[in-house]
Amino acid sequence: MISRLCMIGVGLIGGSLCRALKAAGAVGSIVGCGRDPMQLERAVELGVIDSFETDIAKAVSDADVIVVAVPVGAMPAVFAAIKGHLKPGAVLTDVGSAKGSVVLAAREVFGGDESYFVPGHPIAGTEKNGVEASFAELFNEQRVILTPLEVTDPAATQVIHKMWQAAGAEVISLSVEHHDEVLAATSHLPHVIAYALVDTLARMHERREMFQFAAGGFRDFTRIASSDPQMWHDICLANKDALLDMIRRFSMDLADLAKAIEDEDSATIKATFNRAKQARDQYC
Amino acid sequence: MISRLCMIGVGLIGGSLCRALKAAGAVGSIVGCGRDPMQLERAVELGVIDSFETDIAKAVSDADVIVVAVPVGAMPAVFAAIKGHLKPGAVLTDVGSAKGSVVLAAREVFGGDESYFVPGHPIAGTEKNGVEASFAELFNEQRVILTPLEVTDPAATQVIHKMWQAAGAEVISLSVEHHDEVLAATSHLPHVIAYALVDTLARMHERREMFQFAAGGFRDFTRIASSDPQMWHDICLANKDALLDMIRRFSMDLADLAKAIEDEDSATIKATFNRAKQARDQYC
Repeated sequence: MISRLCMIGVGLIGGSLCRALKAAGAVGSIVGCGRDPMQLERAVELGVIDSFETDIAKAVSDADVIVVAVPVGAMPAVFAAIKGHLKPGAVLTDVGSAKGSVVLAAREVFGGDESYFVPGHPIAGTEKNGVEASFAELFNEQRVILTPLEVTDPAATQVIHKMWQAAGAEVISLSVEHHDEVLAATSHLPHVIAYALVDTLARMHERREMFQFAAGGFRDFTRIASSDPQMWHDICLANKDALLDMIRRFSMDLADLAKAIEDEDSATIKATFNRAKQARDQYC
Repeated sequence: MISRLCMIGVGLIGGSLCRALKAAGAVGSIVGCGRDPMQLERAVELGVIDSFETDIAKAVSDADVIVVAVPVGAMPAVFAAIKGHLKPGAVLTDVGSAKGSVVLAAREVFGGDESYFVPGHPIAGTEKNGVEASFAELFNEQRVILTPLEVTDPAATQVIHKMWQAAGAEVISLSVEHHDEVLAATSHLPHVIAYALVDTLARMHERREMFQFAAGGFRDFTRIASSDPQMWHDICLANKDALLDMIRRFSMDLADLAKAIEDEDSATIKATFNRAKQARDQYC
């Protein structure tokens, strides 16, 4: 049970975590914090948070757990605003989709003494955003990856571990580097590809007609291209190296496949399609 | 009302069309034809077809409408087997996802006198295949593109037009070339990308772990990579030129985006993501 939680950024992820913890009776009170008072008022109306505060220093001052749920590009500024205002024993976590850059920012701001910081990443979301899209079941049976640092107090990690379990999630620990490699492959690369594909079509002369003949498969395939551009801009830069490595691997594989199609090399085409189908049917 | 319909290839598409026409009372009897008697027996058991025949010449001989619903690579052989066995006034159509190569095969086999041939393509399907996966509502409010030839008898086109309307579809006419360009962009390219992406991950050392951390967005994104490899192999070769052109366009756009990420060129990244999101939200 968390007596007082401070949620910085009450959008899809932050709002859904608030709802889940309230539904589970795992939190006493929640103060929301963010830049837009209208959105925070709406979050109070929806019962997602109990109160709000636009001054970060005030918002965090009496919280036992602080969750930073803003786009990763905004995290350094949030850390700077928090610094020196946490009460003793408070635990800090975040929900950023890239961990290396967030950990680096925390180290730069907090000076390497961030024993109370537990970096985290819930592998859940939809293409929607904002508190209106939040729902308590978002993390149900989904995975949350924690990447505790060498300096992180195991007791702090335990608090965040229990918080996510209360929200219905399965909690796993990975190293920061490993997290960023895996997410570059399974999430960041697919988003970049989806955006690039839809943009390719959108830039064609007959764009209206192109989309008119797109069937259900295309809608599923491109759903993630409706995700928040600012958020994904931040993730691409935050996980730049691992992402560029994955784009290179994928581009080479696509070029090989194009070559096989050009050469009418049926064996290679079928081997590629079969390997992909088997992997997807087995693992997804 | 079609008195007797011959369905060559009773899989997802062929089976669903049979079910839809029966549900609408738009067909008298249906004879199924294919290579696998077990599958055809199953189709009779399921009530999808009334009887079956493994000899194509016999199957088509008393049919008013013949629908060829086999992978596009198998169509030339089907046309050759049909030749000379259609009864006078019979109408022939197909459901191939690429039209140029099908039309060329028909011309070569039938000698340019195929006034009874109405090339068609229902823009519908799932990643599943086989008659077990077929259902009567598959074409409900979906588009069917007909690409009648100069030699095609308008009365024949009308028969196929009404058949698809009875199955619940909206029928549109396009030229063969235009069809193939639009489908390369909206269907064939996305399938090739999905196969290539899943294969890139499947070939990585930590494949099991990669897929373990893939979330819902990834499952949606890669669903089309579970499609039938043989069918998509055929489509890639059948629409090779238009598809290769689209792969080239997409690869250049992806390379530009990778360059922008490498250079941390926020303006270009955000412009690309915003254009894509707007197009998808507007059209899909």
